[in-house]
Amino acid sequence: MEAYLDNAATTVVSENVKDIMIKVMSEDYGNPSSLHMKGIIAENYIKEAKEIIAKCLKVNEKEIIFTSGGTESNNTALIGCARANRRAGMHIVTSKVEHSSVSSVMAYLEKEGFEVTYVDVDKNGQVSPDKVKAALRPDTIIVSIMHINNEIGSVMPIADIGEAVHAFNKNIVFHVDAIQSFGKLKILPKKMNIDALSVSGHKFHGPKGSGFLYIREGVKMHPLIYGGGQQKGVRSGTENVPAIAGLGQAVRDAYENLTEKMDRLYDIKDKFIDNMLSLPEVYVNSSKGKEGAPHIISVSVPGVRSEVMLHSLEEQGVYVSSGSACSSHKQALSSTLAAIGLDKERIDSTVRFSMCDNTTEEEMNYAYETVKMLLPKVRILRRDKK
Amino acid sequence: MEAYLDNAATTVVSENVKDIMIKVMSEDYGNPSSLHMKGIIAENYIKEAKEIIAKCLKVNEKEIIFTSGGTESNNTALIGCARANRRAGMHIVTSKVEHSSVSSVMAYLEKEGFEVTYVDVDKNGQVSPDKVKAALRPDTIIVSIMHINNEIGSVMPIADIGEAVHAFNKNIVFHVDAIQSFGKLKILPKKMNIDALSVSGHKFHGPKGSGFLYIREGVKMHPLIYGGGQQKGVRSGTENVPAIAGLGQAVRDAYENLTEKMDRLYDIKDKFIDNMLSLPEVYVNSSKGKEGAPHIISVSVPGVRSEVMLHSLEEQGVYVSSGSACSSHKQALSSTLAAIGLDKERIDSTVRFSMCDNTTEEEMNYAYETVKMLLPKVRILRRDKK
Repeated sequence: MEAYLDNAATTVVSENVKDIMIKVMSEDYGNPSSLHMKGIIAENYIKEAKEIIAKCLKVNEKEIIFTSGGTESNNTALIGCARANRRAGMHIVTSKVEHSSVSSVMAYLEKEGFEVTYVDVDKNGQVSPDKVKAALRPDTIIVSIMHINNEIGSVMPIADIGEAVHAFNKNIVFHVDAIQSFGKLKILPKKMNIDALSVSGHKFHGPKGSGFLYIREGVKMHPLIYGGGQQKGVRSGTENVPAIAGLGQAVRDAYENLTEKMDRLYDIKDKFIDNMLSLPEVYVNSSKGKEGAPHIISVSVPGVRSEVMLHSLEEQGVYVSSGSACSSHKQALSSTLAAIGLDKERIDSTVRFSMCDNTTEEEMNYAYETVKMLLPKVRILRRDKK
Repeated sequence: MEAYLDNAATTVVSENVKDIMIKVMSEDYGNPSSLHMKGIIAENYIKEAKEIIAKCLKVNEKEIIFTSGGTESNNTALIGCARANRRAGMHIVTSKVEHSSVSSVMAYLEKEGFEVTYVDVDKNGQVSPDKVKAALRPDTIIVSIMHINNEIGSVMPIADIGEAVHAFNKNIVFHVDAIQSFGKLKILPKKMNIDALSVSGHKFHGPKGSGFLYIREGVKMHPLIYGGGQQKGVRSGTENVPAIAGLGQAVRDAYENLTEKMDRLYDIKDKFIDNMLSLPEVYVNSSKGKEGAPHIISVSVPGVRSEVMLHSLEEQGVYVSSGSACSSHKQALSSTLAAIGLDKERIDSTVRFSMCDNTTEEEMNYAYETVKMLLPKVRILRRDKK
């Protein structure tokens, strides 16, 4: 049996998405900037994708900007808003558990003279609205908090944080990295006081190289990429029409029966967590129920290094990730696992199981049985090495 | 009959490219950062694409960075090198006929305090090495000159410019926007003194949303996009593996019998130019033979507005562009056509025919016959309006 359980890293492209991409690449390949029919047909795909997304988020189509993915969305929102609003202040608030596509941008902005406050999380990996509130200052211009943590799946109280931020100062740009939550949790930017929202297509069966940024009308933002003035000058470059059409399709599919699909995942997740906790000396770093994401389960097996567990699982056809796995070439310890207070041994022995909406209970049971079967072996290995 | 002659705007994706993209999207969809087999397979596609490109350019694989397209490549090279080298100086040299993905970046850099010298072109749209040389200063850090102009197809003497620049100061970064030339003209960065080279995939049957930047080892450059540290930290974000694999395939295909394919195009181009010049009051703004690009022919029909000609041709199945057409929503006059000294009437009446390696002589003859057939009608239209 095979169980691909690394869906928080990336998902397979769905048949629907592939079909529309092939159609656009083969037949409707025009440049949306061209004035002839082929350009207009291409532009219509962009319009349609915008309409689908705007409808799901209940925002205006004009507020959607297509990017090359989640990382670019985060960079555009943060660098673009920081530069455009620096006269109002140079202070930014974020959390200690953000993805590197936010935290690395913060490090860059610090070099540019901005001051960044990193808010702590509790032992479940959650940011409290009160802590964010306490960090706000008259010169705060941006607050950036992720919706679902990519390593352990903690869900942040985004609506409450948004309310606190805007109660303090309506002009603060509240940015949410929704890369792990879009297509999983319902997101209503207008209700949740979100001014900017980053989304990546390949996390929910859309194309790699696709993503979007919701940016509320009226928010001041400079472009990150300059050129032909496409997308109202906010993101120049010939639009990646096949990917945008594919992204629109992926959004449409994700929102179909969203609640039912996620309820099923919550159910599978909770059973999997119970199963894992029934194993000796196995720890679960993710929360059961709706305090945690429907699709991410972080598990530690102290004494068994993540890589050993990962490759042992792989031999049995179970694909997982060690830590966050968004960049395999970094050796640094996971900041999220440290922030929730895990010690080095537990961090070093953490693997992440992540589902997509097609993951079956059978696959998760197989993953559990495989861990159970492996445990005595990998633990002997460990004793041998000592 | 149908003749798509807007290939300088974008090309159709080839069957080979589509096939490999479908394979990667369906089967080999892993995240290259994942440590398991699916990640390694994905990473191998990236390695292979790099090998193909490096071999064609005769450069090192480590010197290739994948981007989301030509605009991002230009932005990364120019902004990244300007920021990294600002201590050495704040002066940049470019030409008056660059694509907006260079000229808009220059405008941005000017706001950031850099000083930019815009070198003139001659009546054929060419930048002379002497003029570039005359613009160089002790504080010049970047020279950016395009290889083939996108509007009229003028070919710049890149090797001579590169030699002049490095003879003046080896530390000046010589950047070449090769978006219209890659896959058409042979480019050897090491021989031509090129330090940075921007390429876009969709101009030669590769995927939209794909591109690369060659950056010579040792050139100092800051990233434009921060995050997970992919691609040695120069361009973070999950790599768009299907597009990268497709780009590699497109490069491989483009370089197969490159000389023969281009000789065929030069031949078709010259015949088309002769045909157009045989028509009354029709002007050609592109050069015959190798002084001009093999694939771009700019034509003016004074008195007949570009849009009128474009839509009249479109009704007959001939798709062309007005001016540069890289952004349909801008009303500004073409800077290239003004720079070569055309008056407003001639600029307003210019259309661009652009071929790909599959364009046939029959298609170009059909385009010519269509213009010939339309001329009396569109000219009567013009007299009626007066």
